[in-house]
Amino acid sequence: MPARRNYVYVFDIDSGDRAALDDAPRVRACLADIVASAGLTPVADVEHRFSPQGLSAAILLAESHIAVHTWPEAGAAYVTLTTCRPPAAPDFADAAAGLLREAFGARHVDVRTVS
Amino acid sequence: MPARRNYVYVFDIDSGDRAALDDAPRVRACLADIVASAGLTPVADVEHRFSPQGLSAAILLAESHIAVHTWPEAGAAYVTLTTCRPPAAPDFADAAAGLLREAFGARHVDVRTVS
Repeated sequence: MPARRNYVYVFDIDSGDRAALDDAPRVRACLADIVASAGLTPVADVEHRFSPQGLSAAILLAESHIAVHTWPEAGAAYVTLTTCRPPAAPDFADAAAGLLREAFGARHVDVRTVS
Repeated sequence: MPARRNYVYVFDIDSGDRAALDDAPRVRACLADIVASAGLTPVADVEHRFSPQGLSAAILLAESHIAVHTWPEAGAAYVTLTTCRPPAAPDFADAAAGLLREAFGARHVDVRTVS
């Protein structure tokens, strides 16, 4: 076992709203909401828009990072959150999935974890 | 199942060289080597140095992203690679682990995958 274990959450968004998934301010706000809900601390960020649609963004955190990749044409996106400590709230994954469903009008958000 | 599946690799570096893990150019070069070895395409990046040591960096890719977080004081780091398509080389994970061992003088690199 490595000396320092980390946690990875993968959220797969399906059947989302195409306009919402291509709306950079909305995507950024959703990530910020998830970071805040997990009690994590942003330190730097980067974003890239693809042509003709889609975007990727990553926020470095004091505790690791969160990133999103969207495919508006497919109504799809996924978000990964890695952290060197477990989120404070025991229901963090469910809460984050709810924020993603709401932000992107998605019927379903699948959650996978690695720990 | 979501419409678009993605792949996540987590590499845990243990017992690495403290100076190497705090050497930003070396860390960046190692990530670039892994990206090239996987046949992926960088599009943007971000980096943050922690005080008194340690760094985080993320590279957005045309195919998703790679990120690293280092704890030189513990000889530890981890790298996550997410991609919307599997790396071309079937031995990608082993090759990437080898690059990480070499770059950081680590005795062991543990690999976890989510797919």
